[in-house]
Amino acid sequence: MKPVKVGLLGLGTVGTGVVRIVEGHQVDLESQVGSPIIIEKVLVQNKSKARSINIDPDKLTEDPWEIIHNPEIDVVVEVMGGIEQTKGYILEALARGKHVVTANKDLMALHGPEILAKAQEQQCDILYEASVAGGIPIIRTLIEGFSSDRITKIMGIVNGTTNYILSKMSQEGAAYADVLKEAQELGYAEADPTSDVEGLDAARKMTILATLGFRANVALEDVDVKGISSVSREDIAYGKRLGYEVKLLGIAERQDEFISVSVQPTMVRNTHPIAGVNGVFNAVYVYGEAVGETMFYGAGAGELPTATSIVADLVAVVKNLKLGVNGKQLTLTYKEKKLKTDEQISSKYFMLLHVDDRAGVLARITQAFADTEVSLESVVQQPNPSHPEAEIIIITHDASKASVNKVLAAFNDMDVVKCVKSVYRVEG
Amino acid sequence: MKPVKVGLLGLGTVGTGVVRIVEGHQVDLESQVGSPIIIEKVLVQNKSKARSINIDPDKLTEDPWEIIHNPEIDVVVEVMGGIEQTKGYILEALARGKHVVTANKDLMALHGPEILAKAQEQQCDILYEASVAGGIPIIRTLIEGFSSDRITKIMGIVNGTTNYILSKMSQEGAAYADVLKEAQELGYAEADPTSDVEGLDAARKMTILATLGFRANVALEDVDVKGISSVSREDIAYGKRLGYEVKLLGIAERQDEFISVSVQPTMVRNTHPIAGVNGVFNAVYVYGEAVGETMFYGAGAGELPTATSIVADLVAVVKNLKLGVNGKQLTLTYKEKKLKTDEQISSKYFMLLHVDDRAGVLARITQAFADTEVSLESVVQQPNPSHPEAEIIIITHDASKASVNKVLAAFNDMDVVKCVKSVYRVEG
Repeated sequence: MKPVKVGLLGLGTVGTGVVRIVEGHQVDLESQVGSPIIIEKVLVQNKSKARSINIDPDKLTEDPWEIIHNPEIDVVVEVMGGIEQTKGYILEALARGKHVVTANKDLMALHGPEILAKAQEQQCDILYEASVAGGIPIIRTLIEGFSSDRITKIMGIVNGTTNYILSKMSQEGAAYADVLKEAQELGYAEADPTSDVEGLDAARKMTILATLGFRANVALEDVDVKGISSVSREDIAYGKRLGYEVKLLGIAERQDEFISVSVQPTMVRNTHPIAGVNGVFNAVYVYGEAVGETMFYGAGAGELPTATSIVADLVAVVKNLKLGVNGKQLTLTYKEKKLKTDEQISSKYFMLLHVDDRAGVLARITQAFADTEVSLESVVQQPNPSHPEAEIIIITHDASKASVNKVLAAFNDMDVVKCVKSVYRVEG
Repeated sequence: MKPVKVGLLGLGTVGTGVVRIVEGHQVDLESQVGSPIIIEKVLVQNKSKARSINIDPDKLTEDPWEIIHNPEIDVVVEVMGGIEQTKGYILEALARGKHVVTANKDLMALHGPEILAKAQEQQCDILYEASVAGGIPIIRTLIEGFSSDRITKIMGIVNGTTNYILSKMSQEGAAYADVLKEAQELGYAEADPTSDVEGLDAARKMTILATLGFRANVALEDVDVKGISSVSREDIAYGKRLGYEVKLLGIAERQDEFISVSVQPTMVRNTHPIAGVNGVFNAVYVYGEAVGETMFYGAGAGELPTATSIVADLVAVVKNLKLGVNGKQLTLTYKEKKLKTDEQISSKYFMLLHVDDRAGVLARITQAFADTEVSLESVVQQPNPSHPEAEIIIITHDASKASVNKVLAAFNDMDVVKCVKSVYRVEG
């Protein structure tokens, strides 16, 4: 049978994994799709650079158009990253009738609708399973597995770097800065870790998941983002004592027409299945009205796990090619997006306050909650040997974000409250 | 747009859920597939029986052929259960060009290849996501999500009844018979629980998962099955003390060409993600060469979770109808199935022995392991206040099933071994 020819844009970690799987599993793949899958050309920055895999040097090119304008190539696999330039390559590949598989979360979070529309117009496949949660087939699951249900909540540990850091801090009582440094040495964190630790990477992935889960065009700027750089070992220790683990959670919620999407360090009750997901693993917890609680767990990054998703997409494209059904997708009609206001966003909250250690303080503090009609699940007051103030730990019942902000504003005006040490959303 | 008409065979728990979802989510479904989905006819045993849902009595029929031979009906959804008669209905529906969605694990485990071949011949869709693990889209995941990978191990908690019983026994230290009785009262176990507690239900599901995961025609009789009726509270307590939970696991393994599939109560290390799956939840753990560890968790049964999977399949069929691509499946070429021999099946084992409490016994016992080249990970000997013998708990390193059987035969011939109280496979 005529082989299917693939052009690969990028030969970094994930690109190398794609080559390894396509070549290593050639027999298995051919038995599934009925013809060989050949990596025909690979875009690299520097042809003469040493590689960890054997690859025919004639296949390497530094010119993207040798792939995108190559009539021999059926499918373009994009693993080079980047946004504007890469978007141009992908749109041009689609314009030339090539099917596209991409792992690019940044691109799909920012320009997904435009790229999907172009693919639709060209009757081409565009698949992007690897853009979220590496080896976990969560995009397929949201599109196909739960097509019958109304998803009301998606909670994800979708960034391995921050989960590694928080897990280490929890397991070893270590400080953020020390664990970050160690993660950088091990290659689990970038030299500039901002995008991971400040939650931007997770926010991009949550944009994609919320769009699919709620069938609404969620944009990156709709996501309320907070990273983990202010999480202290003390917060983690206090959480643990009360039965919580601190996790960087992406949370997308829907109630009737209204949705909210956020990323923030969250106290997760240790009996919740997502609380036990540690290290560089990812997990996506999905709650559907009919299906109830589900969770999908696996490696969120890495050469081979991510490449598994890319090659699975490639297999899907090649099967469609063989059957002559590429680009046969029903156009998803998106619902009008209505974002929840702070009055509508509701959850439990954890707060750690430092207060004057004298009579009547707790009464004033609890009165502030009562004034905004926030009821409390638990309150612990204790002296702190290391400083003159007392510590108060509060866990609220479900309260709106707006009310909690009012309480925090009230604390700001109370001289007995020395500082609000930390505030966390609580789940589970 | 012309509505798609569905014939429903069966209106028990799951059938009722299908009606509820199709009617309750009508707007969402129509927005996805572009036309209404109508439940046209429903096969019931007794038209005059009271129902928990409102359904037009004219839609009910006691005659299956009113559905199967009805030219108006596009898709048959089978949730009536049963094997031979139901198989006849499904084959006839396919012969009439109707697409089929079924939740019938018994039928797919026993006659899957014949039914799939008939669907292929007729260019009809046949989907059966709900046949394994209720609301968890594991069949899609194995077929599509991991199409690029070589799966080497599938471990599943795929029977909610037995997981409920074992979880309760573990959490409350209760005895098997008491928890079974309670489960029956709560409706989690059937009046005749044999198929669940003896592992047959799990074996049927593992037959389906192993067939898909390994792309080999695994048959039910290839599965080595042991149920949970002999699991004692003592076994669970001993396991707990050593860091294990007892779970009824379906385990399908592949090494090179050779596969093995089994269902048995297993000691699962409590750090393994599957050890924490409790109650009526199901989970399927999949290990792929490239993707590494993944796990899929959710409700394994129940009206709405199972109906979610059925209606997701129905949505897939209707999308295909609209696109004119039904039955467009590449024929899966199955590998020749080679079953592992007992020499090739390898795992760790847990054993609890009652032995004479005198000098030299432990030496004789450990010598029996040495003679068959089974090495030991841990050995605990202790007196038992409730009977005159000593107890020995052994956990082996990886050993072949054949060697372990030889050791057990040797114990049978040793007068100092009063009894082999229990033997468990160990995972994690």
